[in-house]
Amino acid sequence: MKGMIVLINVYISNQIPQEIRADLPSTYITYYTSSDISEDLLDTVEIAWGLDKNVISMIESPESKLKWIQSFSAGVDYFPIQQIRERNIILTNTSGIHATAIANTVLLYALFFTRNLKHAIQSQSNQEWDSIPHFDKLQTLRGKRWLIFGTGHIGREIARLAKATDGETIGVNTTGHPADNFDLTVPITEFSDYLTNVDIILNILPLTTETRHLFDDKFFDKLTKLYLFINVGRGPSVDEKALEHALDSGTVQHAALDVFETEPLSSSSPLWNYDQVLITPHESAESNELLPAVRDVFVNNLDAYLGDGVPDTDIVNTKEGY
Amino acid sequence: MKGMIVLINVYISNQIPQEIRADLPSTYITYYTSSDISEDLLDTVEIAWGLDKNVISMIESPESKLKWIQSFSAGVDYFPIQQIRERNIILTNTSGIHATAIANTVLLYALFFTRNLKHAIQSQSNQEWDSIPHFDKLQTLRGKRWLIFGTGHIGREIARLAKATDGETIGVNTTGHPADNFDLTVPITEFSDYLTNVDIILNILPLTTETRHLFDDKFFDKLTKLYLFINVGRGPSVDEKALEHALDSGTVQHAALDVFETEPLSSSSPLWNYDQVLITPHESAESNELLPAVRDVFVNNLDAYLGDGVPDTDIVNTKEGY
Repeated sequence: MKGMIVLINVYISNQIPQEIRADLPSTYITYYTSSDISEDLLDTVEIAWGLDKNVISMIESPESKLKWIQSFSAGVDYFPIQQIRERNIILTNTSGIHATAIANTVLLYALFFTRNLKHAIQSQSNQEWDSIPHFDKLQTLRGKRWLIFGTGHIGREIARLAKATDGETIGVNTTGHPADNFDLTVPITEFSDYLTNVDIILNILPLTTETRHLFDDKFFDKLTKLYLFINVGRGPSVDEKALEHALDSGTVQHAALDVFETEPLSSSSPLWNYDQVLITPHESAESNELLPAVRDVFVNNLDAYLGDGVPDTDIVNTKEGY
Repeated sequence: MKGMIVLINVYISNQIPQEIRADLPSTYITYYTSSDISEDLLDTVEIAWGLDKNVISMIESPESKLKWIQSFSAGVDYFPIQQIRERNIILTNTSGIHATAIANTVLLYALFFTRNLKHAIQSQSNQEWDSIPHFDKLQTLRGKRWLIFGTGHIGREIARLAKATDGETIGVNTTGHPADNFDLTVPITEFSDYLTNVDIILNILPLTTETRHLFDDKFFDKLTKLYLFINVGRGPSVDEKALEHALDSGTVQHAALDVFETEPLSSSSPLWNYDQVLITPHESAESNELLPAVRDVFVNNLDAYLGDGVPDTDIVNTKEGY
């Protein structure tokens, strides 16, 4: 290859915010966007950043030179994984950079309920000092037992904070392999034994055929009086009707949900109106640090790709789907 | 003393909740309460648990046998400290047992603002999915610099959680002596150098003549754009009018307040109406674990007192007032 200069065409999809498109490495690289790429150039693109209809066209075109897609997100369930796999396209995600914000959000959810903050906020809005001691309603996170579905980057960071607040952590993953910050890990085939003995159940699993509606009537029926159910993974992992039944019957006492079967959550969903449910609009991973970090992942992977044709981090196993 | 049986009269004040009065150690001890103690028995009481007007009478009576008061609370600013000191009465507090709940509450306050939770709660009450990315408004606690006034049990536990969320911690105490979980400690005479370089300022100092209105106009004027001011110590340490000015001018962007100059906070206080202020009704230390812990402190101290006439833990320095 010595002496040869290879020009690489990179396509930046509409998914990538303007703020992080400037000042990208330019040696040997030509960047295109949806507003300046012509039909006939689509097949010449070797690297795509994010997903939009042009990237879908590239994945589908038999003549495409596409070799690598860097996703904007951690979850890649909305990509045509099967086609990407068949075409031998490398897919990388950004799963490493969401851990801090999601774990912060999860800690907030847990403290929001244990400290009964909703009551204080309502009292404040009525300019009302509710001075009755709430010894029975206020709790701490000390001694809380967490059952965390997913022991990747994000699950481990959540478990770290759960331990820091003196909780106990049980992790659920495919094989039950050990993971940092978990007191115990169990394979996904065996979690049922732990359901009645924990305070907080949290989902951060990727969405796959195995995890779709993992949290269904059958699951919730095994609980007795779960203190808190949290979903910061993917919405379709939870059967929302089943969760509503569990909230109605009291087998789930509180829920904090950032993701939903259909997003945006329909204004007619009963979930909005449960007093014991906290809803956030799929923002648990967002922060002022996120966009620079998304950019860093791409640029670092690009450096590595230019060196030896393989991005550096977060390569998705397209067979497993995460 | 061998062979001698000394009967000790213990008075349980009205401040002590019924739930923790049962099954106290009874050998050599007679317990009295406000409903069963007669005027002439007041002087025979050697140990008082909590404060009420009968305990005040004991402290003031020249004939009183009172030797030890176990307070219900961590702060003892509402006790007649000077008289207690002059009468050589031992005063013990419960400062060790509030740390977990207060530190949990502080973490909740900080995450409430960094994760812009008020906006999500308002959107939920309107059944409104606000899907605009909030990259600029949502933050994490990573890298936040905390200036914590007070490095005792509670301050150190707050600092531990601040560190666990990847923050930096500067502690302020009397002499600048080192304290666990603080990256740096400075004496109270020298904190001014750090005011413009921190994100979160928190007060957990006891109330003394030195700390009354420590946070006044002069203090707030030194800030530039402080992200968050937290008071979980004592209300009168803050000049509330000065804090309101700081909120109006933007030198303080957010505040979380659990304690106030006058409690209950008057319904006419302007503080209720600030959108950027979170108010809780002096409950940061409360939890379902608190009463059993208050009882444990008393019983442990009582055991020690029965052994050698001195309680075991949390003896207040009545000269310093904490």
